[in-house]
Amino acid sequence: MAAVLTGVSESAVAGAVEAFVEALGADAVLTSEDDLREYRDPYDFKGSDEYTASAVVMPRSVEDVQAVVRIANEFGVPLWTFGQGRNNAYGGAAPRVNRSILVSLREMNRVLEVNEELAYALVEPGVRFFDLHDHLLAGGYKLWPSIPDIGWGSVVGNTLEYGRGYTNYGEHPATACGFEVVLANGELLRTGMGGMSNSKTWNAYPWSFGPNHAGLFFQSNFGIVTKMGVWLMPQPEVYLSGWARFLDDDAVGPLADTVRDLMLEGTIRNLPLVAHGLSVEGEMDLDAEGWGLRFALYGREAIVDAQYEIVRAALEAIPGVEVGRRLFRWEERANAVNHNDKVQGGVPGMELMDVFMIPYGEETGHLDLSLVGPLVGKDLVESISTLRSLYARTEFPYLVGILLIQRSVLHISTLFFDTKDERQTRAAYDTYASLAREMAELGYPVYRTNIQHMDVVADMFDFNNHAQRRLNELLKDTLDPNGILSPGKQGIWPKSMRDSAGQAKA
Amino acid sequence: MAAVLTGVSESAVAGAVEAFVEALGADAVLTSEDDLREYRDPYDFKGSDEYTASAVVMPRSVEDVQAVVRIANEFGVPLWTFGQGRNNAYGGAAPRVNRSILVSLREMNRVLEVNEELAYALVEPGVRFFDLHDHLLAGGYKLWPSIPDIGWGSVVGNTLEYGRGYTNYGEHPATACGFEVVLANGELLRTGMGGMSNSKTWNAYPWSFGPNHAGLFFQSNFGIVTKMGVWLMPQPEVYLSGWARFLDDDAVGPLADTVRDLMLEGTIRNLPLVAHGLSVEGEMDLDAEGWGLRFALYGREAIVDAQYEIVRAALEAIPGVEVGRRLFRWEERANAVNHNDKVQGGVPGMELMDVFMIPYGEETGHLDLSLVGPLVGKDLVESISTLRSLYARTEFPYLVGILLIQRSVLHISTLFFDTKDERQTRAAYDTYASLAREMAELGYPVYRTNIQHMDVVADMFDFNNHAQRRLNELLKDTLDPNGILSPGKQGIWPKSMRDSAGQAKA
Repeated sequence: MAAVLTGVSESAVAGAVEAFVEALGADAVLTSEDDLREYRDPYDFKGSDEYTASAVVMPRSVEDVQAVVRIANEFGVPLWTFGQGRNNAYGGAAPRVNRSILVSLREMNRVLEVNEELAYALVEPGVRFFDLHDHLLAGGYKLWPSIPDIGWGSVVGNTLEYGRGYTNYGEHPATACGFEVVLANGELLRTGMGGMSNSKTWNAYPWSFGPNHAGLFFQSNFGIVTKMGVWLMPQPEVYLSGWARFLDDDAVGPLADTVRDLMLEGTIRNLPLVAHGLSVEGEMDLDAEGWGLRFALYGREAIVDAQYEIVRAALEAIPGVEVGRRLFRWEERANAVNHNDKVQGGVPGMELMDVFMIPYGEETGHLDLSLVGPLVGKDLVESISTLRSLYARTEFPYLVGILLIQRSVLHISTLFFDTKDERQTRAAYDTYASLAREMAELGYPVYRTNIQHMDVVADMFDFNNHAQRRLNELLKDTLDPNGILSPGKQGIWPKSMRDSAGQAKA
Repeated sequence: MAAVLTGVSESAVAGAVEAFVEALGADAVLTSEDDLREYRDPYDFKGSDEYTASAVVMPRSVEDVQAVVRIANEFGVPLWTFGQGRNNAYGGAAPRVNRSILVSLREMNRVLEVNEELAYALVEPGVRFFDLHDHLLAGGYKLWPSIPDIGWGSVVGNTLEYGRGYTNYGEHPATACGFEVVLANGELLRTGMGGMSNSKTWNAYPWSFGPNHAGLFFQSNFGIVTKMGVWLMPQPEVYLSGWARFLDDDAVGPLADTVRDLMLEGTIRNLPLVAHGLSVEGEMDLDAEGWGLRFALYGREAIVDAQYEIVRAALEAIPGVEVGRRLFRWEERANAVNHNDKVQGGVPGMELMDVFMIPYGEETGHLDLSLVGPLVGKDLVESISTLRSLYARTEFPYLVGILLIQRSVLHISTLFFDTKDERQTRAAYDTYASLAREMAELGYPVYRTNIQHMDVVADMFDFNNHAQRRLNELLKDTLDPNGILSPGKQGIWPKSMRDSAGQAKA
């Protein structure tokens, strides 16, 4: 898990930086140590000098991005791109390869179009969830964004990492429609119907004539996404923020099966969360007894009423489960104060950051072990029980939130540590790796991981001698022969940096 | 639009056929003229000898498919693969390149798994909609498939062509979850979570760790799909087959906007169809006056009742629109006799074939001009009016069905012709091409096309000097350097068969 230093020469970086300044202007390039410190992984050991960039370049346009890519090819320097760089717990803005040049897309932050009839927006990668929400409100559009727990991240960046929100549009990778991408050779590609210059449906119809390329740019180092269409939810007549609570693990199995059936029949259509210590006020108490479930319903009042009665009856049939709700009409969601009501209502906030800082104050770090499992009660109960005993062998408590996605779950447990404490920080990263390995043996991959664990996780995808990795390597070598785009991202290394087994050269 | 003959030598074909017989057995290889005639495009001019295969090979297993690919590489012969070969109106089983060897996957026809809790099946590419439906019924599974108009097609084949059905699961490309693919080099790939051998979520969770490869295998010549997960709809308590009828084009605009809003708010979740001449009994009368809309609701009775009242009130508010419904509880849909009730209830049939044969009897051919547009009333009315006047200049009437997909429409008009009449058949193909070109000028691409029009349509995707085609060529040359897999499919030609502009060599 050591940082990779291969082949990034000081003179190449110096040459590239000079060329960036020439092409984009001096104010678009940062190189001071103070500036670079801000872009380190906030959850790595504070004394570490690994995973550190050598410069930050900030394009303002697609042409700027093309210039950056051209220069990187010329000087053979690796880039590492982010929208906002808030991919915290997975590395933040920090690069996999030491001394990479960060491409910050924060300056490309325009909402280019909102189509109210067809309920979508076209956004640049620097647009934060806050920005999209505020833009829709300011424009009087009756459209809600789906947002993740913390509102400062990039809509595009979150989506490309397969991130989620909690409304009916919470499955973010499925709500993206139409990408514009700068490829490693500087060429501009538009996916799907965007392949026809004057097409009316780039952001309305997600498929292509011929193969669909959109998937290639998720968790990827094959291109830099410069525009994305995102589908939005029309403002509902009624938004119901619902919850259930129960004390014992025993209820988790029947509850999961019940909610799955309600999701598959279409009664619940958002992404519900089951979490230990989740209160009905939407606060997380890391030491609390018992479990909380939150879910939401949206639509016409008569239908939401009927749906809630069905959900309530089904959940209350499980011994020990209490059910409740809060109702919001039209824009009343703006008055929501608690976290559950806000995130399920598409209102971005920062309140969860306070929870993340409870264990060790401002310097608290955390890692999320984000396992993908089937949404089957028996299986979920078993995996909870297994993780409980695995965690019991470590110094970290088992703190768990389970996101329900129709047929699957993201079973996410969080390891908190003090980033000023080198031993504890390293113990957390090592514990994560061994937990991930043990769960992979049982058939549970993670869907997303920290820069330090990308190789470990990629290695778990073993089908047919790592056929997926070998295909990714073939694509990488074809699309990016100089290996300039985010080398090592998700364990995909360019030829010059990998050995014959696909591992990063020491 | 002439057939391509490039580089398929008789001796190479003969050598490959011998090797197929050796590897798969004589009964797995067809070469007689009588046999081959069955695999011609049923809607091409009957006297044509273009788009004709030189042999058919019928693998029974993944290993057989790998052997076929190995032999094709060895002898340098082009393959053309199909599940059932019922891609009628788009070429049927016929190859783009004359003398290609057809790979028929009809013998790989097992439903490998049904997971009732998670509502999915894992199927081989030879499984027809009939087979899947019957398998679910015979096994007592309370799961419904989504089916297209005619039940004899391959579930996998239809999905890979971005085909549709008419239930809440009608957007077939979005209901596929997990592919197994034989690549051109014979390697076996599993997409998404299938990349981990023992993963529990290959067919439950559609995304990958790293880039998602599934999109590469739609309308594609990059691999041969040998397994696919398909999500199914749990049997609803109530299924409501609804309809509206109206005489004038004037109602189409407000109706489209109204249905879109009902779809976006989640009240209607299936794929409704608006068609000229669609009766409430689900019959198509090509000469009828007026329009029909069909839609469907599924779920708990109390909710479906409330939804229907909302839909009825909204549609009846449009002048001249009459609304009606038929209700089916649980498995009562098995008694459905009319086409609308069957297809929206997931019951496959062949009844629409009779309609297709009305104009010229058994030898009637047809082409579908399948345009992608935004689901906006004003736009739809304009495109109907444009197409009406374009068709009026031809010898073909404007016969139209419009499929509504939340934010987009497939505006499909059908040209019928007598395949025994060479002049009329050629006129239909030429008319299609010129209509497609005129509508592309206005921003409407087609989503799917006949083998004879693949180059014409690919050429319309012009953004950044055909960036999509150039990317596809790069991928083709990398993944299939010998160009053995379905050359010319969707206008993607291997290096040996294309000129510098990406066009097929003469």
